[in-house]
Amino acid sequence: MIVVKIGGGAGLSLEACCDDVARLCAAGEQVVVVHGGSDAATRLGESLGYAPRFITAPSGVRSRYTDARTLEIFTMALAGLNADVVARMQARSVDAVGLSGADGRVLEGRRKEAVVAVEDGRRIVIRDDRSGTVEAVNASLLRALLAAGYTPVVSPPALSPDGPINVDADRAAALIAVALDAEALVLLTNVPGLLRDRHDPASLVRWVNGDGIDAALSLAVGRMRVKLLAARAALDGGVDRVVIGDGRQDRPLTQALAGEGTELVTHRQLSVVGV
Amino acid sequence: MIVVKIGGGAGLSLEACCDDVARLCAAGEQVVVVHGGSDAATRLGESLGYAPRFITAPSGVRSRYTDARTLEIFTMALAGLNADVVARMQARSVDAVGLSGADGRVLEGRRKEAVVAVEDGRRIVIRDDRSGTVEAVNASLLRALLAAGYTPVVSPPALSPDGPINVDADRAAALIAVALDAEALVLLTNVPGLLRDRHDPASLVRWVNGDGIDAALSLAVGRMRVKLLAARAALDGGVDRVVIGDGRQDRPLTQALAGEGTELVTHRQLSVVGV
Repeated sequence: MIVVKIGGGAGLSLEACCDDVARLCAAGEQVVVVHGGSDAATRLGESLGYAPRFITAPSGVRSRYTDARTLEIFTMALAGLNADVVARMQARSVDAVGLSGADGRVLEGRRKEAVVAVEDGRRIVIRDDRSGTVEAVNASLLRALLAAGYTPVVSPPALSPDGPINVDADRAAALIAVALDAEALVLLTNVPGLLRDRHDPASLVRWVNGDGIDAALSLAVGRMRVKLLAARAALDGGVDRVVIGDGRQDRPLTQALAGEGTELVTHRQLSVVGV
Repeated sequence: MIVVKIGGGAGLSLEACCDDVARLCAAGEQVVVVHGGSDAATRLGESLGYAPRFITAPSGVRSRYTDARTLEIFTMALAGLNADVVARMQARSVDAVGLSGADGRVLEGRRKEAVVAVEDGRRIVIRDDRSGTVEAVNASLLRALLAAGYTPVVSPPALSPDGPINVDADRAAALIAVALDAEALVLLTNVPGLLRDRHDPASLVRWVNGDGIDAALSLAVGRMRVKLLAARAALDGGVDRVVIGDGRQDRPLTQALAGEGTELVTHRQLSVVGV
């Protein structure tokens, strides 16, 4: 069982990702696909004259301010993307079933009651933000679908006691991998992996062991930092192997599973951040 | 097992429908919810500056011209509505799972290769329309979900060999009821049922038997005609009972099952169109 998270960033080839998932499924591998859709949500918001507003935490991390209307737009955009992925899979004879986190409560989370942001140098507290963190995965629906031969395609939002919330799809994929005791979690993105110098693709970090994640985090900014935190959650939860791979190439999943990208493991004895 | 189709028309109370489905589920009844979303798709299209264009068949039937962009908008709008229904059900402790027709190929159909329309008195042939007709329901996914205690919430599009297509949700609900051998199909709408005079709610037709559907069809126009055709497909397929009920009232499903609305049956000996 492989959990693969397909990023939505520019350059990532959805065609190549779907082709490769279909190839693995045809070979008898069980696969769970997870995707986000920040870019799709941004595009839809802009088309609707409701462009997203981003907030910056005191730590410097940037996130989407998700008011009720933004959540509605985010939900439509991700559901539309989910339907697109499912249709592409079905066209490749993969019997896919799309799920949002609310379906069968697959992704349960908690809304952030107060978000502290920095605006024009001042700290403000935002209380109506409908975003949060995935805290639990209900694996029973996923297991039932996999046992019946279906390929789940999962995306945010998650469900909280306050209703649906915008959550990070990398972390969702990690907790799904933990809940299903996956052999591997693959996070496909639009860069070769973790780079020592993010402007130099040749500076790829090929291996990180569990103890090295803190050092790796110091190299990462933005989305890559979120991916490393997700990788850590997966490893902490017992997943043996996480690969952050390049989703822009042919056979991206096969390549990542072959070790192309940044591989994060718990048990191997490696240097803290090895090359 | 009850299949209930919730209309999306003005005035229909989604809250009351969800409350009532939850009540039935809590009482141990298996329910499959089906919904369309023409109004939601129209609103989204208008907000995006891509208002729908309707075409009129030589028979006078009006339908949405579904080019690629319209299908994309239709898919997003319905998926957003589906997520909303699922979240409302989950908030009522119903373990709902949303499905579009592509998920597990639940709704399979065929695209209309050529649509004849009348425009400014002239007949034109439209060849790029991505709409069609549901022809088959794959019940295995629905059965697996129901057996595991989930409540499926199904909506168009359906899947055709040419990809997703816009289809009528009333007919989809009818074919689902047939495939699952449902006790009853309930079509909730924003009128009391079939009216002899559509401007007079007191002219409700309370009973129609199988042989009376042709007579009933002669009373109906627009969406009501589509509902009667769906009812006929359900009865022809072996569903004993179809009720077209008022979704604007409290406990709309319970009321419809109690016979409030227009009830269509095959086996009872009744007048052709009884009152």
